[in-house]
Amino acid sequence: MYKGAREKLFSFFNSIEAQLHQDAASITKNMDARGGGISSITLVDKTIELDNYYQIHACFNTVDSMGANFINSCLEQFAKTLVREAATHTDLKGEEPIEIVMSILSNYVPNCLVRAEVRCTIDALEPEEGMTKREFAEKFVRAVEIARIEPHRAVTHNKGIMNGIDAVVLATGNDFRAVEAGIHAYASRTGQYRSLSTASCTEDEFCFALEIPLAVGTVGGLTNLHPLVKWSMQLLGNPKASELMELIAVAGLAQNFGALRSLVTSGIQKGHMKMHLLNILNQLKANATQKEEAIEYFKTTPVSFSAVTEFLKASNA
Amino acid sequence: MYKGAREKLFSFFNSIEAQLHQDAASITKNMDARGGGISSITLVDKTIELDNYYQIHACFNTVDSMGANFINSCLEQFAKTLVREAATHTDLKGEEPIEIVMSILSNYVPNCLVRAEVRCTIDALEPEEGMTKREFAEKFVRAVEIARIEPHRAVTHNKGIMNGIDAVVLATGNDFRAVEAGIHAYASRTGQYRSLSTASCTEDEFCFALEIPLAVGTVGGLTNLHPLVKWSMQLLGNPKASELMELIAVAGLAQNFGALRSLVTSGIQKGHMKMHLLNILNQLKANATQKEEAIEYFKTTPVSFSAVTEFLKASNA
Repeated sequence: MYKGAREKLFSFFNSIEAQLHQDAASITKNMDARGGGISSITLVDKTIELDNYYQIHACFNTVDSMGANFINSCLEQFAKTLVREAATHTDLKGEEPIEIVMSILSNYVPNCLVRAEVRCTIDALEPEEGMTKREFAEKFVRAVEIARIEPHRAVTHNKGIMNGIDAVVLATGNDFRAVEAGIHAYASRTGQYRSLSTASCTEDEFCFALEIPLAVGTVGGLTNLHPLVKWSMQLLGNPKASELMELIAVAGLAQNFGALRSLVTSGIQKGHMKMHLLNILNQLKANATQKEEAIEYFKTTPVSFSAVTEFLKASNA
Repeated sequence: MYKGAREKLFSFFNSIEAQLHQDAASITKNMDARGGGISSITLVDKTIELDNYYQIHACFNTVDSMGANFINSCLEQFAKTLVREAATHTDLKGEEPIEIVMSILSNYVPNCLVRAEVRCTIDALEPEEGMTKREFAEKFVRAVEIARIEPHRAVTHNKGIMNGIDAVVLATGNDFRAVEAGIHAYASRTGQYRSLSTASCTEDEFCFALEIPLAVGTVGGLTNLHPLVKWSMQLLGNPKASELMELIAVAGLAQNFGALRSLVTSGIQKGHMKMHLLNILNQLKANATQKEEAIEYFKTTPVSFSAVTEFLKASNA
């Protein structure tokens, strides 16, 4: 926060920019050596949105690490330098002192996007029961369109994408709350919460794509400490951060394809309840024989909690 | 999707509403007995947003279960009834048939809100180093204001809230992707992504609150199957779903208070890096003596990856 004349603050800021870099040098040393570091430091006037509020907006390249600790340490150093330099700078003489509200990274990274895309001829699609390949492609595109225009649908459409994304994020020891928050905020960037994926079909081609902001790491944090994370990284061929971003996006797109395919053909419950049948049987304490019989019976009958309860009642009678 | 005259569809829909309930009776039986069931079924004209698109919007009371399977099963039954009745209904004679695109619940529940709020006199706040209690309260309110007006900050502010929320959601066997998606979409409901929490201070009172949409369950799903979920539920005193919502909101608000308190006083890194010190020491394969020495040394020196590397280099020399 700063109550003085705008120009004085900008002139002061320009004069200390080199000092900001210099004072952070001990923190950035390792990152610089790996080809990363501070990309830019700019002063942003936010006083229209909030009285006396200015922001120091810094961009970082953290190479293969997520970089949260690195960034926060740099930002806190910037704040120290800023206050120290402001106290003696001639431009700010007689002005009320600058007040630091806070120094913290942002998990919103709309400049760090990854795109996964799949294209094929409509003819190359798998045949679906009860509809032509073109009918399937068009119905699929319509389902994505609905998620573009209707927030109620967009939330669950994107939630499904996150089922795929979070699986990889968690397995690789990354911070899923950070990824979730950044991606959902990105879904609302037009002023309405919308689908993250897009689909189209031309005369003979089907196209399906997903674009999301991501800041993930393959070094630092838990990545080298948690045994399951190490194992997952090996399974993925020890990717660089940029490759992991691609894998994550592809997992999200694949999940979305699977969910939409079910939704526009058999419906989601057929597969879902088949999966859930054993949970229900366990919960109702079915014995081994009952389980076998139930699995056989529900091959042709829709699964629901009541239907399974009834089935077991009859079997116990 | 329906290409015919709007009035015909609405008249048809009104005439089959009772049938929709009746055909779903076998699915809703158990839920009805527990005091829940279908609250309403309405037809919504969405053709302005998407050509020929109408939506059947149904509301459900799922009591203490999250209800995803129950809702989806009802919706799929509605679709079947709709198509069957449309085929023979006089109102729709000669019209192109209704096409069902999909039947699926929404995880966006802005009518199912929970609010956590804390109030105290400014004088009752804990003293903070280097500032008066009023200065602390005002700086805290300013930090929340920044998250209201600035999406970059709002994302990480809300991400922190989710650190608290997801902990309880995961421990109680609920679906964190569903909760994440619904809450972040809610954060964007004004057309800009904003802070989920609000803070204010009057002459002598400090107030801090969080309002979020939540659909969680304490029965069904994994809640009765996973041993750790059972244990967590017992720890929480076997709450009803409405009580669990309150606990989740309070966990989010408490996290946000802790994070903002650090941010506007000592900075986030002091506590964070102290926590992270052992991770770094393990990663750099420090031995037991080095760990002890490092913990002592970094009581008064800022922790960073480089600083710890340097410390160990000196210790190995």
